Amino acid sequence: MEYVLPLQKLIEKFCTLRGVGYKTAVRYAFSVLDMSEEEAAEFAGAIISAKRDIHPCEVCGNLSDGEECGICSDAARDKSVICVVEDTRAVMALEKVKEFNGLYHVLGGVISPMNNVGPEQLRIKELLSRINSGDVRELIIATNPNIEGETTAMYISKLVAPLGIKVTRLAYGVPVGADLEYADEMTLMRALDGRRQI
Amino acid sequence: MEYVLPLQKLIEKFCTLRGVGYKTAVRYAFSVLDMSEEEAAEFAGAIISAKRDIHPCEVCGNLSDGEECGICSDAARDKSVICVVEDTRAVMALEKVKEFNGLYHVLGGVISPMNNVGPEQLRIKELLSRINSGDVRELIIATNPNIEGETTAMYISKLVAPLGIKVTRLAYGVPVGADLEYADEMTLMRALDGRRQI
Repeated sequence: MEYVLPLQKLIEKFCTLRGVGYKTAVRYAFSVLDMSEEEAAEFAGAIISAKRDIHPCEVCGNLSDGEECGICSDAARDKSVICVVEDTRAVMALEKVKEFNGLYHVLGGVISPMNNVGPEQLRIKELLSRINSGDVRELIIATNPNIEGETTAMYISKLVAPLGIKVTRLAYGVPVGADLEYADEMTLMRALDGRRQI
Repeated sequence: MEYVLPLQKLIEKFCTLRGVGYKTAVRYAFSVLDMSEEEAAEFAGAIISAKRDIHPCEVCGNLSDGEECGICSDAARDKSVICVVEDTRAVMALEKVKEFNGLYHVLGGVISPMNNVGPEQLRIKELLSRINSGDVRELIIATNPNIEGETTAMYISKLVAPLGIKVTRLAYGVPVGADLEYADEMTLMRALDGRRQI
């Protein structure tokens, strides 16, 4: 037997969220029923507003509720360094560190022949025009440390090489706090490779 | 750093769902951003509709999108047996079994002095008037097998005793497929107590 129709529909909507199974969706739907009318209306409004009011920043492609995102429009940031990332989540992760003071460039994915994503689907053209038009000195490529991220990093670095700016890549190595015993061979190899004098 | 405001608001709304922490809420919010405008609008609409169109059934208190729920208005069901449960979730669990063909009565909770819930907050008065007005022969009390469920079952059975109808309680015992080794002592005691000839 199914739930009453409006509840069933809500459960199905919750099922479309990433990582939500049927039982979890049922629990969420009942949470909504436990809300007041106002809370439910605010929840629905937040969904609508997130879709309607958030757009990619015209400069870097990061999420923004204006034309330029908060980072690009921040005069205190160093405009000579651009950190190239796959998506907004990477921007958030790096911003949490509070170490990097440059700008970002969100590619919107990585080169992945498996998923039919080529360089032309990414915001690489926009990256080149940013480099050409400005005083960029360094490009830090911070795509994820996997094959596709690596391929994309190589592709961009080759493309940018003739422009004569410095291109760097995040350091590979053993994660802080991890146990060497559980590190995979590739990571250990890279950590040895990139060893530094103390 | 926080996310852009509309996203931050949506994340906070997802955090109000039962069992959702901040990281999970962020994942869900990004899922919403990945939806099309139509999908997001349908999602928001489903939340509004669930709150607006679902009401307790006038007879049994089960969730319904009309005045009477699908079970109470089903002429094929046996109106002489009422199964008393804590909430709608219990109705759904029992309906899945496809064994019970009577009606339900949803209490809307259990007697719990810890949470300031007394008998007057539950739909016990409505239960008594259903018994008084009709041809109910049996009351199956199916509150959860814990102290509060047990207390509520005892309370109702004492209240109903003078009315001369049969009052039963779901059987306690070891769950099918379980391992005796892992059954707790109370359950094993009840299982021994309720042993049946084979």
